[in-house]
Amino acid sequence: MTDYILGIDGGGTSCRAAVARPDGAILGRGKSGAANILTDPNNAIISITEAAKAAYRDAGLDEAGVNGASAFLGLAGTNVGDLTRYVHDRLPFRHTAIDSDGLIALQGAIGDEDGAVAILGTGSIYMGRKDGTVRYIGGWGFTVGDLGGGARLGHALLQEALLAFDGVHPRSPVTNAVIEEFKNDPRGIVEFARLSKPGDFGRFAPLLFDHAGQGDAQAIAIVETGATAVNESLDAIMALAGASRLCLLGGLASLYPQWLSEKHRSILIEAEADALTGAVALAAKGYQERQGAVA
Amino acid sequence: MTDYILGIDGGGTSCRAAVARPDGAILGRGKSGAANILTDPNNAIISITEAAKAAYRDAGLDEAGVNGASAFLGLAGTNVGDLTRYVHDRLPFRHTAIDSDGLIALQGAIGDEDGAVAILGTGSIYMGRKDGTVRYIGGWGFTVGDLGGGARLGHALLQEALLAFDGVHPRSPVTNAVIEEFKNDPRGIVEFARLSKPGDFGRFAPLLFDHAGQGDAQAIAIVETGATAVNESLDAIMALAGASRLCLLGGLASLYPQWLSEKHRSILIEAEADALTGAVALAAKGYQERQGAVA
Repeated sequence: MTDYILGIDGGGTSCRAAVARPDGAILGRGKSGAANILTDPNNAIISITEAAKAAYRDAGLDEAGVNGASAFLGLAGTNVGDLTRYVHDRLPFRHTAIDSDGLIALQGAIGDEDGAVAILGTGSIYMGRKDGTVRYIGGWGFTVGDLGGGARLGHALLQEALLAFDGVHPRSPVTNAVIEEFKNDPRGIVEFARLSKPGDFGRFAPLLFDHAGQGDAQAIAIVETGATAVNESLDAIMALAGASRLCLLGGLASLYPQWLSEKHRSILIEAEADALTGAVALAAKGYQERQGAVA
Repeated sequence: MTDYILGIDGGGTSCRAAVARPDGAILGRGKSGAANILTDPNNAIISITEAAKAAYRDAGLDEAGVNGASAFLGLAGTNVGDLTRYVHDRLPFRHTAIDSDGLIALQGAIGDEDGAVAILGTGSIYMGRKDGTVRYIGGWGFTVGDLGGGARLGHALLQEALLAFDGVHPRSPVTNAVIEEFKNDPRGIVEFARLSKPGDFGRFAPLLFDHAGQGDAQAIAIVETGATAVNESLDAIMALAGASRLCLLGGLASLYPQWLSEKHRSILIEAEADALTGAVALAAKGYQERQGAVA
């Protein structure tokens, strides 16, 4: 019987899997529904298993073979230890390793070398690896963290629109655009904000960067506040990990660079690969370590 | 039959009423439970009626007399028009006028003259009256407004504690105090914030002002950000209402003055009376206007 490995990237909207040979060569890929271990761990187990079986079928392999696989999973929400253990113990794979979604993104982006990664999407988290040790900063979520992430930027824009409506701050094209979107009724903004999840706020971030690029003073002020938060966190992760290269990931990765300080901008690199590829690489590494231990 | 008037101050935690002679001389006071017309309008109607009857009893009057009273109510949440009408139509008084809790606070604080009032408590709202016209700024609530209010200050402090924990910002006595309160576990801060209502955040505001007064750099930065927001809104309400005197109300009224700009600090006055007294004064004014119209 041939051994196969599985890399799995599980998130709140979908779960992706790739089956590969023990050397990391990918043979097939599969996708399934949400794998959010915090909100629905049992459904996450189903999604992870389904994505794995789909990858086996895509590779022309018998899906029952997943039971013999060595799997590495990068999942959101792994800082809650009990649920990680719960999911770990109920998955069908021969070997199962679970770590954060951030770690597989780091592995995919910078491979085995040292370096730092910032994921700038709805939220924001910073990682650096030095001599094999990975350090994290941020990622505390929208409510009291993730400054510089899209949700906080969108939130700041809605707040600015209310200040502009009240005449406390000057109006500008970007705040006018928001006020018009809510039919000139500030109560609509308040009600939207009350009901919104982070992703709903985050949808205003591209509008903000767009106006900032066109010179809108209010948009520039908000983007610069976000960029200051990102710069400060990058300073901290660079100090921890001593990295000489930096990769930005996430939906805002292409929008932020021009607003960041020169010392960070000058060491930017493109991601080598995506998070799923990172999960496969870590699965291969785990497999080879176990083989070495046996040999 | 003697005519009486009622002033009523209804809020989210309690409802207070005062019965008075038509000239505004208060005869008795009563108190009852929450009168939140947004979350429970039917219960608000009961609380308002109970507080009114209690005031009548306190004055040695038959509580059935509330049916003949001319009442002026200052209530939170009156910007939602349908609920105000719903409550208005179901109260037992002969004449009922409902306006915002802010208006009765303004009336109590500055009487019949022109001037401005800032209510700096958990939230923040600004009012100014000029030639009888009242203008409002702010009061949009914690989620995307009320900058400078206690909830936003407390929120900023928790956020600063996480940044200090991550080494993104320097630690200081005030952030150390927060981190220790959460047993040195940042996840405790995140979980607290996720479950907190504005008042829960606001409870950290006195700690913040205390440390700012002792020279803590991180505390000073947060208080100064709040004071800038208050100054800007005061600038705007002063421009709208052209006021030459300013009264601060709410739990932070005694803590903020030293942090505000000199132009606002130099025109501060003490409140003449409380919001309930303001409601009585407005009830007396309404009664006298109707009498004049009849005569």
